[in-house]
Amino acid sequence: MSLFVEVLNRVAPDEDYRELIEGTVASLNRRILEVIEDLETPIDVQLVGSVAKDTYLVSPDIDIFLKFPLTTSRSKLESEGLFVGKRVLGGEERYADHPYVHGEFNGLEVDIVPCFDLSDPSNLKSAVDRTPFHTEYIMERLDEEQRDEVRLLKQFMKGVGVYGAESRIEGFSGYLVELLILRYGDFESVISTASGWRPGIRLSLKNEESSAFDDPLIFIDPVDPSRNVASALSLESFSFFIHSCREFLKEEGIHFFFPREREPLEWKPIEEMLQERGTKILMVRLNRPDLIDDNLYPQVKKTLLGVRDMLTRHDFVVLDSGHYVEDEVFLIYELESLYLPLSKKHHGPPVWIDHGERFLEKWNKEGLSLPFIEEGRWVVMAPREWTSAKQLIVENIDNSSLGSAFRDKEGLEVLEGEEISCTESHRKALSSLLDKRKPWEL
Amino acid sequence: MSLFVEVLNRVAPDEDYRELIEGTVASLNRRILEVIEDLETPIDVQLVGSVAKDTYLVSPDIDIFLKFPLTTSRSKLESEGLFVGKRVLGGEERYADHPYVHGEFNGLEVDIVPCFDLSDPSNLKSAVDRTPFHTEYIMERLDEEQRDEVRLLKQFMKGVGVYGAESRIEGFSGYLVELLILRYGDFESVISTASGWRPGIRLSLKNEESSAFDDPLIFIDPVDPSRNVASALSLESFSFFIHSCREFLKEEGIHFFFPREREPLEWKPIEEMLQERGTKILMVRLNRPDLIDDNLYPQVKKTLLGVRDMLTRHDFVVLDSGHYVEDEVFLIYELESLYLPLSKKHHGPPVWIDHGERFLEKWNKEGLSLPFIEEGRWVVMAPREWTSAKQLIVENIDNSSLGSAFRDKEGLEVLEGEEISCTESHRKALSSLLDKRKPWEL
Repeated sequence: MSLFVEVLNRVAPDEDYRELIEGTVASLNRRILEVIEDLETPIDVQLVGSVAKDTYLVSPDIDIFLKFPLTTSRSKLESEGLFVGKRVLGGEERYADHPYVHGEFNGLEVDIVPCFDLSDPSNLKSAVDRTPFHTEYIMERLDEEQRDEVRLLKQFMKGVGVYGAESRIEGFSGYLVELLILRYGDFESVISTASGWRPGIRLSLKNEESSAFDDPLIFIDPVDPSRNVASALSLESFSFFIHSCREFLKEEGIHFFFPREREPLEWKPIEEMLQERGTKILMVRLNRPDLIDDNLYPQVKKTLLGVRDMLTRHDFVVLDSGHYVEDEVFLIYELESLYLPLSKKHHGPPVWIDHGERFLEKWNKEGLSLPFIEEGRWVVMAPREWTSAKQLIVENIDNSSLGSAFRDKEGLEVLEGEEISCTESHRKALSSLLDKRKPWEL
Repeated sequence: MSLFVEVLNRVAPDEDYRELIEGTVASLNRRILEVIEDLETPIDVQLVGSVAKDTYLVSPDIDIFLKFPLTTSRSKLESEGLFVGKRVLGGEERYADHPYVHGEFNGLEVDIVPCFDLSDPSNLKSAVDRTPFHTEYIMERLDEEQRDEVRLLKQFMKGVGVYGAESRIEGFSGYLVELLILRYGDFESVISTASGWRPGIRLSLKNEESSAFDDPLIFIDPVDPSRNVASALSLESFSFFIHSCREFLKEEGIHFFFPREREPLEWKPIEEMLQERGTKILMVRLNRPDLIDDNLYPQVKKTLLGVRDMLTRHDFVVLDSGHYVEDEVFLIYELESLYLPLSKKHHGPPVWIDHGERFLEKWNKEGLSLPFIEEGRWVVMAPREWTSAKQLIVENIDNSSLGSAFRDKEGLEVLEGEEISCTESHRKALSSLLDKRKPWEL
């Protein structure tokens, strides 16, 4: 059995599953139409997304869009849209660009999303309005064999960890995967081409004029050339995908598609690793704010970098950093040293500048040395404001650039040395930073 | 008694001293002429330098030049020049650009220097040939009052530590001082103008065209416009002179001209200073090579910087450094830390570059972490070659840029921590780095 057949056997729907999905969609459709009948608005119901395009992996979200006439007010669209969703799914309201309902139906995950019924995707009223056009574009062009190529590519990306445009992943969206298969023909062509990608590469299906984008990968949206389909893809995920393709080309294997689950490292190898390196760990613990992942992760990343910048600005050498989110949020920093000497070299103005006077007056009194001249400039051994990285964060974190959800610093703890112990959560957090194995190496 | 009178009382010759000098010059002249008579060469004897110009401070060197006809061979000039010098002074041979004799006569220091008798200073055969022209230029232009202004300026520069073009000082030559007085008129005008100098300032007496110079101060030599009289002046001495002028203008005082002698700091304040700063000292001790100061100091400075660069290149943070030369040579470094962790972050190529492969192969084996991606580039925790600053210098000093006289590393010792003790020489060396008081603050 070839590798690809083996992969598809596990992720492509078989006859039974296909029937389950189709039956569920049909029942959903009926239920929705029943509810709509009671409303006066002429709503068009459309199955969209990977189920409509038949590019889904088991088990997919079923995405149903309720297309409201353009003349509908936004508040009516929202209230009636949520009303229909709740009546059908009884599920929970969620917010992307505007509200929708997520729930279960027949044991499957379903989204019911209200949108405007546009004739042209260039006049969007909201971001989701584009989805029906994407669905139609792919349905019209992707042939049956290519649908399985899409499934292979999706699963490969899932395996190596770059599938999904959500902010936790910053990877490739399903639509982008489909466009790549349309562009290159099949899975293997995408992999071999992508192994030679460089940042700034620009792809399209129509050779249309378009705006300039400053993203690592640019794929012009065929239904809206003003948009880069790959805008959510980070340089990190882009690079990692290139590397994954190269490694796969060197030696294909099922473990690229289905890697082993990553177990956190044991405490002992963690301790040995740090001992050997001679580096120091600083952990910032925060309560996990009550936000959905897509709102949480950008804030975690912003806070991670904000604190990192603050450490660097105060002369601490940060070798590596990472975040770990579970019930709590951990920001983890690997530092050259947790402490710096009190004295730092403070550079003043050139000697020949007039306001040198002020420098001398200040530092004659406050310096740890008298001011002296180096290459024509005044310098002085000045007392350092923060000699402890932990103290800097505890007392000064408000002066770093924090994600808004972390500005109240709820549950803030900063841990160093012995304060980091072999508790489950500390071990997992440390492991997430220190375990640099690639998914296929697990 | 005004300040300037007080200074001149101490450094300008009085009647008795003037007679002593003049009498000595006359006897010297007679002695030289007697010796020359025995030779066949028509040598012209000329008194040059500050004694000739009457700008000397007590107690000056008496400089006598033996001007040989242009047709003389260099070897004859040297042998006969040295012969005369030795016969008259019995002193020791020295080498500047070419050999001369230094000795004592009548209790005064005397140089007898052979040179070529040129008609035009633009066709020099050796650097000393210019001196007679400088002497004549100043003698013809400097009036009697200005001679004392020269003395004031020389003594001021001596007091603050920037008098002398020799490489130990890298300051102002006597000729440059005389030109500054010619240019600005008197001592006070030089001081007040210099307090506003900036690097790159260009001065001249004739407004002549000249080459471009990349020195902090440019004073076009009136007898040879291709030469900058201030070419030996370092940015350090230039800046320090500006600062000295400003401080003097704020509050005049005799201590600018005659500062107290600098005593090395006691051991206790040294220890307290370092304790308070939290910085670390590393001392490199070398035997003092058998060289005259003008050859020794450039090599000491080159070695100081070479070792400093090596430390910096290997990530040690050098806050300050200095040299101390007495019977031994000490290079002293103030560091943020004497040790660094074994692990350092090593940046590799971008992931999309082909030769990334080599980086991965190497560091998959040799890294203290597996390679990982940061902003699209491979990075790895790599083992640091040198984790101890002392070990780096002891074992690797050959890979730093050393002055040639130190390449054999005679007597090399590298001292840190407890190895630096309160011996006289260590205390003096440390004190020379740590005592940043200006001469007038002693």
